[in-house]
Amino acid sequence: MSNLPLIFWFVPFAAFTALGFSWYFYKKMIKEDEGNETMRKIASHVRKGAGAYLKQQYKIVGIVFIIITVIFSILAYGLGVQNQWVPFAFITGGFFSGLAGFLGMKAATMASARVANACRNSLDSGLRLAFRSGAVMGLVVVGLVLLDISIWFTILNQFIPEMEGGYRLMTITAVMLTFGMGASTQALFARVGGGIYTKAADVGADLVGKVEAGIPEDDPRNPATIADNVGDNVGDVAGMGADLFESFAASILSTALLGAAAFMSAEPQIQTNAVLAPMLIAAAGTILSLVGIFFVRTKEGATMKQLLKSLGLGVNISGVLIIIASFLILYALNIPNYVGIWGSIVIGLLAGIGIGQSTEYFTASAYSPTRKISKAGTTGPATVIISGVGVGLVSSAVPLVIIAVAITLSYGFATNFNFDFANLNQGLYGIAISAVGMLSTLGITLATDAYGPIADNAGGNAEMSHLGPEVRKRTDALDSLGNTTAATGKGFAIGSAALTALALLASYFEEVRMMFVKILHQPETLINGVPAKDAAFIDFVHHYEIHLMNPMVIVGIFIGVLSVFLFSGMTMNAVGRAAQKMVDEVRRQFREIAGILEGKAEPDYARCVEISTKGAQKEMLLPSLLALIIPVLVGLIFGVAGVTGLLIGTISSGFALAIFMANAGGAWDNAKKYIEEGNYGGKGSDAHKATVIGDTVGDPFKDTSGPSLNILIKLMTMASVVTVGVAVSYHLL
Amino acid sequence: MSNLPLIFWFVPFAAFTALGFSWYFYKKMIKEDEGNETMRKIASHVRKGAGAYLKQQYKIVGIVFIIITVIFSILAYGLGVQNQWVPFAFITGGFFSGLAGFLGMKAATMASARVANACRNSLDSGLRLAFRSGAVMGLVVVGLVLLDISIWFTILNQFIPEMEGGYRLMTITAVMLTFGMGASTQALFARVGGGIYTKAADVGADLVGKVEAGIPEDDPRNPATIADNVGDNVGDVAGMGADLFESFAASILSTALLGAAAFMSAEPQIQTNAVLAPMLIAAAGTILSLVGIFFVRTKEGATMKQLLKSLGLGVNISGVLIIIASFLILYALNIPNYVGIWGSIVIGLLAGIGIGQSTEYFTASAYSPTRKISKAGTTGPATVIISGVGVGLVSSAVPLVIIAVAITLSYGFATNFNFDFANLNQGLYGIAISAVGMLSTLGITLATDAYGPIADNAGGNAEMSHLGPEVRKRTDALDSLGNTTAATGKGFAIGSAALTALALLASYFEEVRMMFVKILHQPETLINGVPAKDAAFIDFVHHYEIHLMNPMVIVGIFIGVLSVFLFSGMTMNAVGRAAQKMVDEVRRQFREIAGILEGKAEPDYARCVEISTKGAQKEMLLPSLLALIIPVLVGLIFGVAGVTGLLIGTISSGFALAIFMANAGGAWDNAKKYIEEGNYGGKGSDAHKATVIGDTVGDPFKDTSGPSLNILIKLMTMASVVTVGVAVSYHLL
Repeated sequence: MSNLPLIFWFVPFAAFTALGFSWYFYKKMIKEDEGNETMRKIASHVRKGAGAYLKQQYKIVGIVFIIITVIFSILAYGLGVQNQWVPFAFITGGFFSGLAGFLGMKAATMASARVANACRNSLDSGLRLAFRSGAVMGLVVVGLVLLDISIWFTILNQFIPEMEGGYRLMTITAVMLTFGMGASTQALFARVGGGIYTKAADVGADLVGKVEAGIPEDDPRNPATIADNVGDNVGDVAGMGADLFESFAASILSTALLGAAAFMSAEPQIQTNAVLAPMLIAAAGTILSLVGIFFVRTKEGATMKQLLKSLGLGVNISGVLIIIASFLILYALNIPNYVGIWGSIVIGLLAGIGIGQSTEYFTASAYSPTRKISKAGTTGPATVIISGVGVGLVSSAVPLVIIAVAITLSYGFATNFNFDFANLNQGLYGIAISAVGMLSTLGITLATDAYGPIADNAGGNAEMSHLGPEVRKRTDALDSLGNTTAATGKGFAIGSAALTALALLASYFEEVRMMFVKILHQPETLINGVPAKDAAFIDFVHHYEIHLMNPMVIVGIFIGVLSVFLFSGMTMNAVGRAAQKMVDEVRRQFREIAGILEGKAEPDYARCVEISTKGAQKEMLLPSLLALIIPVLVGLIFGVAGVTGLLIGTISSGFALAIFMANAGGAWDNAKKYIEEGNYGGKGSDAHKATVIGDTVGDPFKDTSGPSLNILIKLMTMASVVTVGVAVSYHLL
Repeated sequence: MSNLPLIFWFVPFAAFTALGFSWYFYKKMIKEDEGNETMRKIASHVRKGAGAYLKQQYKIVGIVFIIITVIFSILAYGLGVQNQWVPFAFITGGFFSGLAGFLGMKAATMASARVANACRNSLDSGLRLAFRSGAVMGLVVVGLVLLDISIWFTILNQFIPEMEGGYRLMTITAVMLTFGMGASTQALFARVGGGIYTKAADVGADLVGKVEAGIPEDDPRNPATIADNVGDNVGDVAGMGADLFESFAASILSTALLGAAAFMSAEPQIQTNAVLAPMLIAAAGTILSLVGIFFVRTKEGATMKQLLKSLGLGVNISGVLIIIASFLILYALNIPNYVGIWGSIVIGLLAGIGIGQSTEYFTASAYSPTRKISKAGTTGPATVIISGVGVGLVSSAVPLVIIAVAITLSYGFATNFNFDFANLNQGLYGIAISAVGMLSTLGITLATDAYGPIADNAGGNAEMSHLGPEVRKRTDALDSLGNTTAATGKGFAIGSAALTALALLASYFEEVRMMFVKILHQPETLINGVPAKDAAFIDFVHHYEIHLMNPMVIVGIFIGVLSVFLFSGMTMNAVGRAAQKMVDEVRRQFREIAGILEGKAEPDYARCVEISTKGAQKEMLLPSLLALIIPVLVGLIFGVAGVTGLLIGTISSGFALAIFMANAGGAWDNAKKYIEEGNYGGKGSDAHKATVIGDTVGDPFKDTSGPSLNILIKLMTMASVVTVGVAVSYHLL
């Protein structure tokens, strides 16, 4: 048992501050007027649908959690490869992640009608309300992560006994990492289930409503329109929240573990500080996000451009401040080579901005890639699809280059560009902390993300409530702004997932190395004149042969790529199946319920909500379990070498495929919008119809398969980290 | 200088036999009647178009070859890292590969009208003529590969001086490998250029002809129809020929190199035999393919099923015979562990069959995946695309599993499942020789492949010549059979490319190791009690750190995945751009040339041929150069570790993406055909229109980007092998 340094308490302080302000924004938001009777009714429909869905989802996820926890308990007590704290850490991670998603969704569903109503007054008051409601979610996510980390770090510090040679902090941080696995398991179900739900409804609504019946989006005559709006909340809000909760947690925790490993031979105080550094930077970023949020204010009658600028101002202020703050933190903590490590953090932040900007370039209709897709609309839907796929594939190159450069530089700065083997651990710490840097201002970046679906739903509410054209014009403007921030946010989510997964991969190596030390050597002994903990890795490279000529590694990489493609295919097929059922149902209602298209009869919204819910529940299980089973199975057959190959194959190809899908989908969406603005014949032209088809194809790309891959790559790595003992001790080949 | 063993002369014997029979089949074919005036005229149009295109392409490729040869000459004489024979080997590889494509295409364009004419008599005579014409190409390809290998092996054996410790055969086989790089450079241009050509024409013809004007495929009123038929020849015939020429050559040559490395410490005779083994197995397979070809004969009035069976009989007979023959060859050569290595060969053959069958399952309308896509047609084009993408992504899992199992087993058999580091070289030899096994009967499998486009063109000729419905029914039947064999062939081409690329990757390691031995050690000295040539690899693992924790390796893998996605995106965009030009031109002709749609005026075919030619020439250069430049650039920045990462990233993700694209494209094609057979409303229904869009999207997937990836993964590996000295001696980080 050791006393925690005073500065640690800044982490729970930041957690409570974030949660407190989140509560404050929420309370302020629900005091706003929810509008007329119809608006309230529609909002309540959506709220109920979303609540019912999440309840269903949490039930299924609960069962999965119970099973996994039992397995962990057996592993912990029976095989002795894991610490007995693991099952509890796993559960709290899942619980807090689910809670973050739930609260974010609650705020979003409360906000939509109120934002629509605010737009009756002015565009500006609509924007501010939507953004503050998004901030509820951003602050809840970062607050809960910091809270959970604070609690566990305090508890484990209290109960885990002293160990020799810096092993204590290794053990503490390793146990805490399982908290991340709970979060990512929860997140995968949220992303996959929510993604299938939202796109089954969206595709079904669009295909029959827009294409066949010729009625506009969000038209109340469309039976699937409530389900579509519910989907935005369970997919884009709850899913996104759980996803970034996981990235935020995992980047901090893996950096802590790698800090413990990198500075094991340093003074105990230095090691502790290296573990605290990512937590403190995240805490500081949270406070600074709050500062940024308060800078987002506009005067009455501001133009769209000014609004966007105002949003950007908040994000940029937080970014600049965290650059300064993280330097001071590293300096105060007296971390060796603090200037270099600070460089790694800055690299992470810049990489996040770079990926966001490249996403904007490839998906915004202001630039040529998306306009080319619009132009392809003049030669029909086939060329729209071909050029969208082309743009998506090419677009993945830029973030891949950015990540490759970020890896090289963040490793390089942390090691003063000395790529020698001896500096490996410092370099890995550099990569991991760059992920923390990228995510440090998550409080505000997530607020701008969550703003998108809230604005979208407000538009839906306005449309369904038959509010005047000037209101709809305002909600459309908010929605359009939301599309820009959502695209940037998606790129950011994927980029942070890739860096986080790499940090987790490094943690995997550290854990294997530690097990290897425990099994084969005492850490203090010298092997060929090298302390065992360093020599062990050299042995490890040989013993497990994690070099690229080992067939196990190569086979692992192939299986990693396979997992990514199979998983994406399964989620695509799931959307296809569920959407077809939705199409059949909407067609049936149009056929059987008399007067529905004339607006004289109300459609059976609930039936469509039920189809989406059931479809999502049924379809999410298999792909999600795949992510948990494959790493264990590969470990059991091919051992550590196979698992390392598996992970790097999954991360690299999963990242590329995720970017491809997100950007192709975003570009198709905006190519359609560009035509709707009056180009190439405008609304109703053949080119427009062609791009509507492109947009529909893009829906599962950008909102189901693409974002689910973010979590797949993190969860597979997490599952490998947590079950590392299995791969080390038992393997067939 | 050493005398070659007598048995070596079996290789040139097989080469001349294959070329002789190819000549014989060709002579017999052109004696057949080419039909009436119109048929001759159309065939001559296509022939001229194809010839003109290839001439253009060879000009550009010629310039590229001159530049690369100059660079190699500088490397060879200036930097001294390469042997002075390299530039010449490179040129002959390119020359023979181009020649194989040219001769195959010549035979194909000569055959189409004759096959159409033969179908006026009977289905059977049409099949036999088409198959024999395809055999011309199959035999030319294998014959020329074996001829080139024979010539170079004889010359190098004559001129390369004796060296200590088995280095002589290492040097000879390493030089010969550059012959493969010439072949793959040629092949990439053929596949990319031909692929863009054929799909620009096809997409353009379909979009305006079928979708807008409502005229059938291959209708002479369509201005792009000749270009479409030319495209089949330059893309599917010449491109496929150059592709498999390269795989056949590279698998034999890399196995020879790995044989020389694996048995370096054995008696010189054993090492020589290990080098000869892949050549002899390929030679035996060639003779046995010929035997199989003669078994493909049917009696008059045979049903389609019997025809397919007859085709299968030929392939199976060749397969069974080569299993027996390869055992005898390995036994006679007295190769250590010949039973195990024979097992590796059998695994390769089985893997080829397995991949072919999985391709058939996922793309034939007899099975549920394709039928589901047809069903999705009832809910419009968007669901057709979504389900096709889903099927394609899922389908890639099966070949990936097959390759993963094949790697494990072929390595395992060759090492008696002893995965210790000491057996690494034997294991790699096992993986490489399994690729030779897979490709050994290429003579006949390629004949069944090349048969497809010939039948397709015969159908086009029959349609354009207004032959009677009974003739068209027969050519349709042949075409349908051709679609099945083409899909299987595509899977086979990709599978063999993956195994070949892995063999090349292993060769890369061997070359690095040899350079390392040369630079740092004398091979005879003991390092820590281990002979330098083994110890060198251990040093190499450390010195170059090709383990998965090295950031250079990780960055390399990311860049590898990037290359694959970028390359595919560029080729997709190229088709999109060229196709849009074609659409504009066809629309213009329909608009401006009066009477064209009534069949009263002849369209300007030549203009469309020109658009495809120019489009292909312009668009093929950048993606192809990318494949050559990236490996060198990565080597210069990140060194050997970066290059190894690059290659494994490229191979794994390129393989998966290629299968995805080929299978999605094939499934869309057949989903459309299934509806045309009268399901879900049949021809002209909305479901049919939706699947026609799917088919059009699938065209560049399956015939441009997908197959080009086969060569990309081989060429990038080849380029790394040949420029290995650059990465070893000069790198930034």
